[in-house]
Parts: sequence; C-alpha cells; structure tokens
Amino acid sequence: MDIKELVVPERILMGPGPSNISYRVLKVMATPIIGHLDPAFLDIMDEICQMLRELFKTKNLITIPISGTGSAGMETSFVNFIEPGDKVIIGVCGLFGERMVDVAERLKANVVKVESNWGEIISPEKMIDALKRNLDAKILAIVHAETSTGVAQPLEEIGDFIKDRDTLFLVDTVTSLGGMEVKVDEWGIDICYSGTQKCLSVPPGLSPLTISSKAYDVLKKRKTKVNSWYLDLTMLTRYWGKERFYHHTAPISMLFALREGLRIIMDEGVENRYARHKKLGDLLKKEFLDLGFTLFSDPNHSLPMLNAFKFPLKIKEPEMRQRLLSEYDIEVGGGLGKTKGKIWRVGLMGESCRLKNILYLVEAIKEIIAN
Amino acid sequence: MDIKELVVPERILMGPGPSNISYRVLKVMATPIIGHLDPAFLDIMDEICQMLRELFKTKNLITIPISGTGSAGMETSFVNFIEPGDKVIIGVCGLFGERMVDVAERLKANVVKVESNWGEIISPEKMIDALKRNLDAKILAIVHAETSTGVAQPLEEIGDFIKDRDTLFLVDTVTSLGGMEVKVDEWGIDICYSGTQKCLSVPPGLSPLTISSKAYDVLKKRKTKVNSWYLDLTMLTRYWGKERFYHHTAPISMLFALREGLRIIMDEGVENRYARHKKLGDLLKKEFLDLGFTLFSDPNHSLPMLNAFKFPLKIKEPEMRQRLLSEYDIEVGGGLGKTKGKIWRVGLMGESCRLKNILYLVEAIKEIIAN
Repeated sequence: MDIKELVVPERILMGPGPSNISYRVLKVMATPIIGHLDPAFLDIMDEICQMLRELFKTKNLITIPISGTGSAGMETSFVNFIEPGDKVIIGVCGLFGERMVDVAERLKANVVKVESNWGEIISPEKMIDALKRNLDAKILAIVHAETSTGVAQPLEEIGDFIKDRDTLFLVDTVTSLGGMEVKVDEWGIDICYSGTQKCLSVPPGLSPLTISSKAYDVLKKRKTKVNSWYLDLTMLTRYWGKERFYHHTAPISMLFALREGLRIIMDEGVENRYARHKKLGDLLKKEFLDLGFTLFSDPNHSLPMLNAFKFPLKIKEPEMRQRLLSEYDIEVGGGLGKTKGKIWRVGLMGESCRLKNILYLVEAIKEIIAN
Repeated sequence: MDIKELVVPERILMGPGPSNISYRVLKVMATPIIGHLDPAFLDIMDEICQMLRELFKTKNLITIPISGTGSAGMETSFVNFIEPGDKVIIGVCGLFGERMVDVAERLKANVVKVESNWGEIISPEKMIDALKRNLDAKILAIVHAETSTGVAQPLEEIGDFIKDRDTLFLVDTVTSLGGMEVKVDEWGIDICYSGTQKCLSVPPGLSPLTISSKAYDVLKKRKTKVNSWYLDLTMLTRYWGKERFYHHTAPISMLFALREGLRIIMDEGVENRYARHKKLGDLLKKEFLDLGFTLFSDPNHSLPMLNAFKFPLKIKEPEMRQRLLSEYDIEVGGGLGKTKGKIWRVGLMGESCRLKNILYLVEAIKEIIAN
C-alpha cells in the first residue's frame, strides 16, 4: 500500500459550505489534545457554551455543541422531543425542509407539511394558519436559511404567535448563524441548531444547539427513553452541565477549533460580521446580475451568505463549475434535488466572505466565457 | 467577554482514551480544508477506506468512518439492523456491554443478556449456548476489548459458530483496533465498529465501521426506514460509494487526521504495532504489581492497551490521580459505573504506548507515595 503524504489543492470555498477556515482556527487544531474530563477541558467547554449563548442571543442554560455535523443537530432536535404519534408541523420550501420531514417521519411523528415553491419563503400567515388548525402540534419546525434555495425565512411573526402556546418552535440556523441575526430568545425559538462549517468558518463536525426551558420541560416529561443514545440530551446535559458525568468522548480538537472560531467572531463583533455579509452579498448579487445570472430566490428574501442563481445560456453546467475548480481553485455549488443542473449556489460564508473572492470569481467566470 | 488564546497543559494521556496524537496527525489537521464533494477529497475518502480494510482485515466493500465518536459507531451498528421486536443477544460484562443493551432497547429490540462478572470474559460456550436457545436472534453482539474492565474477549469460537447461520455477529473494537489483532473476515464478524481516539491515536470524532455483505443483505431487506437519518447506512454508502451522492457534510479535517493516523500505522506495520502494545502492556503490569497493585481483570484475558488494577491501601483515590495530573501532567483513568472509586484504568494506546511513559508514571507514583 503506497499512500502518500497529504497534499490538497488550496481552494477558495464559495459553495454552500464548508467555508474557508482562518489560520487561527487551523493553528489551534494542531494543539496536542487533553482528556475529555480534564479540569482544563471543562473550562474550555464552559467558554464555548458562553460564546454560543452570545451568538444565539439566548440565556438558555442548555446551549452546547452536538458531536456531529448540522444534520446530527437536526436529528437531535427532533429525536429528543418526538414520541410516536406526536404531531409536527414542518415548513417545506427546499431540501432541508424535506430532510426535516424525513427525520421526523422516521421517528413516527404525524407530520403536517406546509409547503411553498422552492425559491420562495413560506408566508408566516400560512405557518400560523397551519398551527391554528393543529393547536395540538408538539413542534412547529422551519428552516431559517434554506441552503438549497438561498431563501431567508422570516421568523418573528411565527415566534410571536407560538410564544404563549404549548407548541415548541424549532428552527434550523445551519447556514444563518454567524452570518446574519439569529435571536433565539427574542424570537421565541425553543429548539435551535446550527453547523460549524458555514458562517462560523470552523471545519464540519459539530452542531451548536440551544434549547429553551420550555423545551427542556417537554423533554423531562417524555414517557419513553429518547430513541437515540448518542444524541440523548438528558445524558448530554449531564456531561456539559455541572455534573460532568461521562457520556461519550467529546471531539476535543474540533472543540478547540470551535472555541477559536467563536473567539474570532467575538473579536470582529457580531454586528460587524452581519454587516460584512450583507454588503458583500449585495455586491455579489449585483455582479452576477451584470453577468446575466438571475436570482433563483425571491429578491425580497434572499440570503446574504448563500446566493442561488439561474444561469444564462452562455454558462455550461457543470462544465463551467468544473473549470472554476480545476483552473481557478474556486468551488461554487450546483443545485440539489429538483434544482440539480438548474441553479448555482454561491456562498459567502465567514472567512470566505471577502471582497477579493468576489472579484476573483467574477473575473474567472468572464475569462472562461471569453475562452 | 474576555476569552483568551487557547493554552492547554501538555498531558501524557494514559487513561482509557483519548490517547496522545502524533505530531504528524496534528500537522495535517492544520491543512486548509477542501469541499466534501471535491474530486481531490473523493480520492482521500478512497484511501481511508482502503487502509481501514487493511486494519480490520476485511474485504468488506462497506468499510467507512462514521461522523461521530465510537458511541455513534455503536448506534450505527444497531440502528441499521434492528426493527422493533427483533431479538438481539448481547454479552454484558462491563459498561460498554451495558451501553449496547441500552442502545438496542431504545430501538425496541427484544434483548437477551448473557452476563459475566465485571473483570471476567464471557465464555464462548455461554454465548454459543444462548444462541442455540435463540436461533431466531438477528444479532449477537459483544465487546472485544471492554474498556471499563480491561478484559479481552475471545471471539473466534463464537464467530465460527455463527458463520453459517442467519444471525449477524456484531463486535465493538473501539479499544482494540490498532493495538491488537482484529480479523473481521477470518473471525466471521458481520458488523464491526471502532473509535479513532484509542489505539489509532487520532483525535476523537470518528468511528470506523465495516459491515459484511451478509449484514448488508439484512439492511436491504428492512421493512421500515432506518430510525436514524444521520446514521442511515443505505444513504451513507451512496456518499462513500461510487455514486458520491451528498448525504451530510463530511468532517473534512478529522478525515485528514484519520488518513494520517492510518498511514502511521501502515508505516509501523500492524504486527509490529501489536507486538509493541503486548510487550509494553506486560511491562506495565509487572511494574504495577511490584508497586502493590493487583489486576482487576482475569490475568489470562487482560488487554495490553487498557490495564485495570485494584490499588493498594497506600494509594488514595481520587487524590493520587489528581496529583498525577496536576503535578506530573499524567492522566490515568478511574473506574466507571460499579467500579468507580475501586479501580484504576491505565491506558497504553497508540502514541501513548511508550516505554518512557511507563517509566515516568511508575516514578511519579513512587514519588507521590514517598511524599
């Protein structure tokens, strides 16, 4: 067996994630590890939770990173709260809404889908109407930033309606957290998960999650054990809480990385960071429209960090994307599911969200078109 | 918020895992990442699978790392094969056998426990007898290296008996893989998982897993979808196989690390590596017996890489372990579950399995006793 030293191309990651990683995060990943019950590690855990609370804008005690990627966060968010037959309302206008349905149905939930076309939001009225017709729903779930379509879903009205009811408000912020406002407490969100590899610019492998005391009460009242041992919050909170009771071996190096990624965000300031994503997202859209692309997502509800475009005839797909990768080391994303081959998804997430990247990408496209 | 630059103590990790990491692995973790669908990454995936097959001694096509720690591997191994009511025989003589029972029962399996005292093996005859009485069992599961007791479970006889039957042979090799022989094909193992943070000396966060074609056939014949979306092998194999179909974003940096950890093992040679663990495990036991410790595990079935001892009266627990950590930067493990406060678990795993570490630990204990 002859497997050589690791050598990888230096890519500019402008797809739907992962995004580029700061040298500061890469450096801490090379830190020799310590044990998951080492007193020095317990301090690190607390610091991570503290910064995650700041980022999620929440006082929730249970605010922890799950030891898996964003999809593990999604599964954690459903598996801990659903018992067979529970009613769950899910907004679906893209692949990640569809994934929520799949996850919930595997847990024998009674799923009520509220759908819109891909590229559109689901109007808050439509979600609220569904809840009014299903006031016994245990969970109402929706994706904040639909990575498959580039749409930013408004949440405040829905949250306001749910706040004083029994239903739990579950929100996917995998692509939004760290790149635009996420206000868990103010918006009345009860269960919220994200991923590290998008606007946090930390390698994939962890899923920050926060749950409200209202959600924790529901968890405590379960009649059956949580289906998943690995993702069981009743045990995970004993490790992340004061008790420090061993559950599974935490992914130490990834947590070092998350801590540094969060420190970078605190150094920049969350408001500055959101403004950077907004400004450069606007610029990217303008440049792409000038190139003949058209927005796939509703222009009034387009994400700054993930821009979905229909491409003009002069763009050959997937050949153009392949050339961007092989000749310019730029990764942009294609469509997923029903948009496969029909759209591009151009990311501006965290470290990847830089003026120089936009200029280089636009010039690269122009060069390829000219040749 | 004032969270400082990451500074951690330099520990010698001689507990039950994680183990120390080679500088080669730490270095590759600082590699800028590439996308999970990048052609360059797909080659890396293939190389990892190829080396894992070598280590597991298997030709199994489905030999992949799961995106979670060893416990996620355990859950993957059960959730993909169990449907409600399925009979599962589980050998229990330590915490990780108990964990298997918990995982299986959450999936509504009909669990038949075969128990021995902690510190003992489960005799192969006893396991085979249980199977003879339950020939309709879908799975027979057992832990190869019981990390809570330091016991090495014999597997060959059990495997020989199962080979020509319908029951699947499921084995936990979290602590054994990379430190002693694991022969998946020869021993007739159908489902086998491990973890990266023990004898592979890669940070925690991935769980290598291999399944036989017999197991895959059972998976394909399921009447219901796999309970867990995140761990569903029918989808994971589409990403790791020729199709490269997107499932979840792979933990890129961790996979870089695993690739390098496996390269180190190939460079050393698996036989040399097992011999090193055996030789130094024997030395550690001798030194500890000289200090007045006694083996907790059956001396005829003690693991080389995880040594469980009862301690003499002159050892104060947990004070002595705390002093080893704070004054000597050495981590050793205490007991888990019913052995908490009663035993020590001293690991010699992968990079941690070095003569210098044994000498230093023994001297440190002597110094603390003398003071």
